[in-house]
Amino acid sequence: MKVSVILGHPYEESFNHAIAGMVVDTLKANGHDVRFHDLYGERFDPLLQGEELVTDQSDDPLVRSHCTEIREADGIVIIHPNWWGQPPAILKGWVDRVLREKIAYEFASDDDGSGLPIGLLKAKTAVVFNTSNTPEERENNVFGDPLERIWKDCVFDFCGVTGYNRRMFRTIAGSSPKERQGWLDEVKDTVCRYFPQDGIV
Amino acid sequence: MKVSVILGHPYEESFNHAIAGMVVDTLKANGHDVRFHDLYGERFDPLLQGEELVTDQSDDPLVRSHCTEIREADGIVIIHPNWWGQPPAILKGWVDRVLREKIAYEFASDDDGSGLPIGLLKAKTAVVFNTSNTPEERENNVFGDPLERIWKDCVFDFCGVTGYNRRMFRTIAGSSPKERQGWLDEVKDTVCRYFPQDGIV
Repeated sequence: MKVSVILGHPYEESFNHAIAGMVVDTLKANGHDVRFHDLYGERFDPLLQGEELVTDQSDDPLVRSHCTEIREADGIVIIHPNWWGQPPAILKGWVDRVLREKIAYEFASDDDGSGLPIGLLKAKTAVVFNTSNTPEERENNVFGDPLERIWKDCVFDFCGVTGYNRRMFRTIAGSSPKERQGWLDEVKDTVCRYFPQDGIV
Repeated sequence: MKVSVILGHPYEESFNHAIAGMVVDTLKANGHDVRFHDLYGERFDPLLQGEELVTDQSDDPLVRSHCTEIREADGIVIIHPNWWGQPPAILKGWVDRVLREKIAYEFASDDDGSGLPIGLLKAKTAVVFNTSNTPEERENNVFGDPLERIWKDCVFDFCGVTGYNRRMFRTIAGSSPKERQGWLDEVKDTVCRYFPQDGIV
């Protein structure tokens, strides 16, 4: 399977980078064709400009290559910290610019854009890994965990990716090396569950 | 009152820009000290980099000036379209970089960052204007309107701004000039309600 892995975290020593490393290693060990993008590392420009918004065309070669790739992906893995109940700006910009109309979704020809979208992504499975410093009870009761609706309903279901799974590791602040190792083991198990050895279903 | 107005939309002919124009004109007519920021127009860089994340210090003069200003603001107005149940990346980056720890919130000295924040913004009132192409019923039932929790709970309540109000204009696609004029009248009324003539309470 072709699996796109998208990481949005600025600090190379972060636990998010460790998660990404485990995801990529496990996918490769399982025989998948992995396309890994550290958005900060590749200097992805998150700003959707006016002309790109109006024309639905991008002149940015990196954006164009992301668009081609995400249409071909059989699976998608997203990794980012919970910043204000949302992804970091660089990953939000990846959504804004890459998951554009005609690439990730479209509307019927007689629709002005306020009707029901038709998802165009062929990926069957999306897995989201998040890190957070907010305890689970507070996340659910005080903030309502916006990331769940954002990724599940606003993004993946909208684009036709119905196999959705998400895991939030918390709290990162104050976690022990042993706890982090346990979380990385869980990352490996999760990847193996949703993206088993290629050819074995 | 000092009122900061933050606009996140790339297209100068957008209805978001028209909303911003009405907000600024009304605030000025009411005698307020308005600080208006068209984030695209001022080329705001939304990327929180690793060093800035770790040190909680920014070398970017524009970010530093935003930080100073938002601490002084008595009121805040945010204007943006609903893109994927979230703000555009440029405005998400303004939140990431400007509403930082020690500027907009802090934790008690014995807290590792997983405890309860103490809001530091002195603004009493925040007003959010959104535009959307999603009908209200679909927004609430299918997507769960993540923007409400994001701005109300994740951002403003977190930073100590308890007077929160939000209005989503929809659907923009297919709206008539008369409908848009009615919405702009409503923007004016809303601004006058929450930011009446200075000195008159």
